[in-house]
Formats: sequence, C-alpha cells, structure tokens
Amino acid sequence: MSQELEGNCLIAQSGGPTSVINASLAGAVTEALNHECIEEVYGGLNGIKGILNEELIDLAEQSQQTIRGLRYTPASALGTCRFKLKQSQDFDRILEVFEAHNIRYFFYIGGNDSQDSANKISKLAQERNYDLRVIGIPKTIDNDLVATDHCPGYGSVIKYVSTLVREVSKDNEAMGNHDLVYVLEVMGRSAGWIAAGASLAKHRDDPGSPPHLIYLPEVPFSVDKYLEDIQRVLNKEKYCFIVVGEGLVDENGNYISTASASKDAFGHSQLGGVGDYLKNLAEERLGVKSRSATLGISQRSAAHCSSQTDNDEAFMAGAAAVKAAIDGETDKMVTLVRAEADQYLCETGLVSLDEVANGVKALPESWINEDGVSMNFNFHRYAQPLIQGEVEVPFSHGLPQFVKLSDNKVPKLLSAYEL
Amino acid sequence: MSQELEGNCLIAQSGGPTSVINASLAGAVTEALNHECIEEVYGGLNGIKGILNEELIDLAEQSQQTIRGLRYTPASALGTCRFKLKQSQDFDRILEVFEAHNIRYFFYIGGNDSQDSANKISKLAQERNYDLRVIGIPKTIDNDLVATDHCPGYGSVIKYVSTLVREVSKDNEAMGNHDLVYVLEVMGRSAGWIAAGASLAKHRDDPGSPPHLIYLPEVPFSVDKYLEDIQRVLNKEKYCFIVVGEGLVDENGNYISTASASKDAFGHSQLGGVGDYLKNLAEERLGVKSRSATLGISQRSAAHCSSQTDNDEAFMAGAAAVKAAIDGETDKMVTLVRAEADQYLCETGLVSLDEVANGVKALPESWINEDGVSMNFNFHRYAQPLIQGEVEVPFSHGLPQFVKLSDNKVPKLLSAYEL
Repeated sequence: MSQELEGNCLIAQSGGPTSVINASLAGAVTEALNHECIEEVYGGLNGIKGILNEELIDLAEQSQQTIRGLRYTPASALGTCRFKLKQSQDFDRILEVFEAHNIRYFFYIGGNDSQDSANKISKLAQERNYDLRVIGIPKTIDNDLVATDHCPGYGSVIKYVSTLVREVSKDNEAMGNHDLVYVLEVMGRSAGWIAAGASLAKHRDDPGSPPHLIYLPEVPFSVDKYLEDIQRVLNKEKYCFIVVGEGLVDENGNYISTASASKDAFGHSQLGGVGDYLKNLAEERLGVKSRSATLGISQRSAAHCSSQTDNDEAFMAGAAAVKAAIDGETDKMVTLVRAEADQYLCETGLVSLDEVANGVKALPESWINEDGVSMNFNFHRYAQPLIQGEVEVPFSHGLPQFVKLSDNKVPKLLSAYEL
Repeated sequence: MSQELEGNCLIAQSGGPTSVINASLAGAVTEALNHECIEEVYGGLNGIKGILNEELIDLAEQSQQTIRGLRYTPASALGTCRFKLKQSQDFDRILEVFEAHNIRYFFYIGGNDSQDSANKISKLAQERNYDLRVIGIPKTIDNDLVATDHCPGYGSVIKYVSTLVREVSKDNEAMGNHDLVYVLEVMGRSAGWIAAGASLAKHRDDPGSPPHLIYLPEVPFSVDKYLEDIQRVLNKEKYCFIVVGEGLVDENGNYISTASASKDAFGHSQLGGVGDYLKNLAEERLGVKSRSATLGISQRSAAHCSSQTDNDEAFMAGAAAVKAAIDGETDKMVTLVRAEADQYLCETGLVSLDEVANGVKALPESWINEDGVSMNFNFHRYAQPLIQGEVEVPFSHGLPQFVKLSDNKVPKLLSAYEL
C-alpha cells in the first residue's frame, strides 16, 4: 500500500489520567513490536514536557508481565502533563528530539488539547519535510472528543459512578428521613457526560429509583426549579439522590460554585464546590438535612471497578493507531465506531486531527428529558453497552497490585532545553 | 444447660450502615431458623423507631435467595435510625410491643449507642420479670467498640479506602508536580481507626510510598507541624498524599473544620470540611497546588470492594448472637476474639452490655509512630488480616445487583404510639 517507513516509534500520554489509558499504551506497545519497520519503541515521560526534555524510556525492554499489568493499572504509567506548547521554539525542539532519535512514528494518547498538540507537530513536520507519522489515540473520561462515538475512559468512570449510586442510595434508603438530600459531585468540565452516565444506576422497571435528579452543564441552573425538583421527589420518595456535574452553570453561563474559580495552564477554570453549594441550598432553603460528597480523582482512577468493554476498546485503539501508521496514515486520530447492528459492536476508524483538535462534543439535548434532570432511553441505549464486563484487577494481601514501568532511560543526545 | 425459652425473635439494625451489616442480619436469620424454640423470626424496621411504631416484618417468609443476597448488599436492609430512647415511656412501649408479639429474643445490630439502648431494654425487662434474652451484635466502621478485638464493618471500609489510596496515588504520581498535595478526608468521629487503616496501602518495602501523612484525631493538630510535614515529604517525593480523619482536633480539643458544627440527635457534632481546610492551608501557606476529596457515605457502602474476612466475621457474629441466646445468655454483646496463633484466627466471645455501652475504644498511642503522622508495625499486624479476600458481588448488565427485603408486615396488635 504505502511505502515502508523505517525508524523508531514514540508513545506519550497527556492530560488527566483515566483507569484505562495504560491499556491503550499496552495496545500500542504490543502492536508496535509486531512490525519490523519499527526499530525501537520509546515512551516519552510526562507527556510533551518529557519530549522537550528528551526524557525517553525504552518500552521494548520492559518485561511482558509489566506490559500485561498496564492493562489494569490506572493513571498514566509514563507520567503526564498539562503543559501547553506555546512558542514556535517548543515545536522546533520537539522535531529536533525526533530527528536525534530517528522518531518516525509518534502516538499521543490524550484529549482535545493533546490532539491539538499532535496536529501542530504533524503539520510542522510536513512543512519541514521530516517524514513522520502522527496518530492520536483518544482518551478522556469527559467523553467530549468529536468524531468518535465515545472515548476510552468514559465507560469506566460511569460504571464506577453508577456503582456508587447503587450502593450509596442503599444507605440513603436505610437512613430513611435522616439524611434526606444526598448530592454527589462528579467530574465534567464542559459537558455533562459523566453526570448523565450516573443515570444507568436507575432500575428501568422502577422510575422512582435513584438517581432522582441529575444537574448537567447543558441545562442552565435555576435555584427555584432546583428547590421545586427536590420537593417533587420528596413528595414521592424517602430521600432525594442528586448527581451534579462540576461544570454546572447559571443562565448567564457562570459556573455555580462556592469556591472562587482559578484557571489552569490552558485557561480552563478549575472547578469544585458545586456539590457543597447544592447541599447548602437544600438545607438553608428547604430546612432538610443534606449531605454531599466529591469523588474527585478517585472516579478516574478506580481500576478496581472499571469496565471490561472500555478496557478492551482502549487496548484496541492503541493497537489500531500503530496499524494505521504502518499503513501510511498520518495526521489522524483513531475513533471508536459503533457498528450498525442489533448487538453492540465497536470498531475503530480514523479522523483528521484538524477535525478533532479542540472540538468539544456536547451531550445531545434530545437525550435529556423535558424535566431537564433525567436522561431518556436514547442516552441509555448509547451508554449501557460501555459499562459491560468487570476488569479483574489482581488483589494480593487484600489490595490491588499495580505495575510500574522500569526506568530504562534512553541516553540523551542533545543539550538541555529551557522550558 | 439453660431452660428452653419458647417465643419469637426480633432482629433490628441501628445507626450508620456498613457494607457488611446485612451479613450479620443474614447470620442471625439463618441461625434462628435452626432452632425450634424460636417460632417467628421478625425484623424491626428502622431500628428502635420501627419497634416503637410496631413496624415488624416477617423474615422467615423472605426467599432464601434474598437472605443469601443480604451477604453482599450494603446498608441496613431493615432500615435504620439515629433515634435516642429518652423517656421512660419509650422503654415501656418497647416492652409492650415485645409482650404483644411474644418477643423473647432480641438481637440489636449496632454501635455504642445501640448497645446502650439494648442494655437499657434488657435491664427493664429484668426489672419487670419479663423473660427476654437480649444480645447485641457489634457493627461500626469506626471500630471504636470496647471489649471486641475489632468490629464488623471496619475491615471493609479500610480495604476500600486503602484501594483508593493505591489508585489515586497512581494518578498523583502521573500528574507529577501538577497537583502536589492530595488530601483524602475519611470518616471517624472520635477515633482515627479509619484514617490509620489507610496506611495499609503503603508498600512495606517502599517507605516513600503513599499515604505519606496521616492526621488522626488522637494527635492534636498543629498548623506549623503540618506545613513542615508536607515540606519534608516534598523534599523527597513528587507529591504528598495525605489522609485525614474527619474528627481531627486542635490542642484545645476543638474540631478542625471549615464548616460550622451542628449536632445530631445524640449530641455528636456533625463533622466535615477538614479535608478542604487542609487543602486550603497547603495552597495558601506553601503556594503549592492541592486537591481534596471527601468520600462520605460511599466508604461505608462500598460492598463492591469489601473484605471477605470482614463479611465472614459479620455473618459469624450474627449467628453467634443467636446461639448464645439459645444457650441462655442475655444482656451481652458478641465480641470478635483474635486467637493467640501464628496465623490470624478469629472466634466469637461475649461481653456484658454494661461494659460495652457507650464506651469508646481509642487507637492505641503506641501504634502511632513518633512523627505522629504514620502507623507502626503493631498497627499493620493488627489491621492487615481484616482486609483479606474480596467479596464477589454479582454484577448484571454492568452494575451490582443488590437485594431488597419484601414487605411482609406483621399485623399490628397495639394502638399507635406518639413518638
């Protein structure tokens, strides 16, 4: 098909980790070792930052046990970063590192920002006539990448959150009218995908089962409606289970939060506190007892309760990226494609990095019920297959045993770079 | 041995639920059905409150599948309460209900407050010459009941918390110097048992592994020492993982919290906010990036990550209570007794309710290292056996399937009672 490109490959991970991002790494490494045109299989430490610093490790030297262990080890085994490539000299440096180590294949596992970085690196290489194949591998619990049916990482986070809803609501039910309103705050900066996913916990044959109310960034928040919603639930049920996405906004688009907003390196607001805000509101305005919990990072690292389907697809996406590059593709991201079939079937596809970079996929409004606080059957049909199957994390002495990559550093060939 | 007492038995659950309290219920029901002198096996709904209201259900009529399902279903299947028996007429009413339904065996699954209630009921029955056998079944994630080696519920909560420490710290490690200080707030009103239990996550061959700092209610909190502790960790490690018990106090015994304290029906302060307080302190005083999470109720209901050892012991304690009562014992609580043996072996014993009611077992100071923020080998040897084995919760369609008791109400025989 395409001309064979000989050289080394480099894989890096970026952005917030997930419980299956290492499965994608395992998929890419495993596939890369199948192809003779790939000589060395390197990992870049701490995302793009490690590449700038020429901090590479040898992934082919890792034991097979370690690579297998990546499939159930949460977070980014290579380390990650939230560093934005700003200056043109950053891009120059990356190509310099690539040339020095004869990197001809670059696989970047990440979300929107990372796919944007991969795109810019790819474009620069083309401008400079440096032969490089760049394939992005999707990753984000936020599920907000465009052009892919869903993102590796999403199925696991909603499986964990829905499991907790099932469990915690048993507690709420048992406590009767002691703790009336329970607020669970979940991640989701710009879209309500995770909060919506909690609706899978609802028993379809029992419309009164929790979660009772889901507050999404897609639906502007109104205090009056919130108080009415709770009262409507409490008229029928013993307690009210609320799930809220951290990115909830008011009608003017301002984040709802008790905390003051600060910004990260990409200019995104750092959120938090909306759960406490809703809890306080229920207590103060309705005089009911309320509790809140913030799962924080545990929701994106809960490998012990992750989805086998998600894990398999993450591995498949990593392998598909390498296959595509070998086939001559570049400047693309792997997508997950839902086959038109009676049963759920997922294949991989490819999309141009231009199309995916910095796009944000919103939760379809048509999947939200008219009440604004629950999901309809279309969402259920979409999300239900993604949480199927339980990853078996090996436990030893009562606790999960995870792996760590050994630190086989590739010797540096360039002088140090000032970040 | 003792004279045979014929009549009905009543089992109730009280206080905050755990992920194994229903295993104790299953143990008691299963054992009760073995004895012909027990005619009916009733469950009291919502703890002592349901008994006052004469809300009893027939447990013998439940399907065997349901009773088996209780073994992995979190929270109190009978419902629970935090209601304190205050007036003497409350106690009179309870005996009236017992007489009306010929209750001769009363098993109360709960913590300190509940054992105190059981004790008072037992004493009153003796005063009135009403033949009643009362046996308490220990339950509390707080592990603070006296006279028992440990409490059913504790092993599971520390297994879950330690699992999360293993997982979340992988994320912290991957994020490198982006989120330097991570604060996990766990339950524990008056003792640091749960926070201490998180130390099991530490790899014994790697003293630098997380959790790095554990703040316990037993060690008065000092801001200066806290800041020094963090700096000491960050001098050596990439990040600092902190676990804090919600009951942390300053040198004057005042709770450390950003939230204002309110009190529950027993006069205990409702805590929360210490995690956020520590997070803010690290950010403001050290200028480092920090995150916090509050697990809340999920930690005591996480059946999907509960300890098989804990579950087995909870079942055994329930069964042992019934056996003891049949043997003529009354006015006692079942204890868990650690056998003097090379390998961990747990048996049941009995202790007078007088001794256990309202006592609080402190974490031994000799198990805390001199630095005040880590646990020594004595704690490890104590806690390690309690988290062994993984309860297999059945998952269906990607989520755990729990059971619900069917609502076979026992007809009321008395007029309504005004609570």
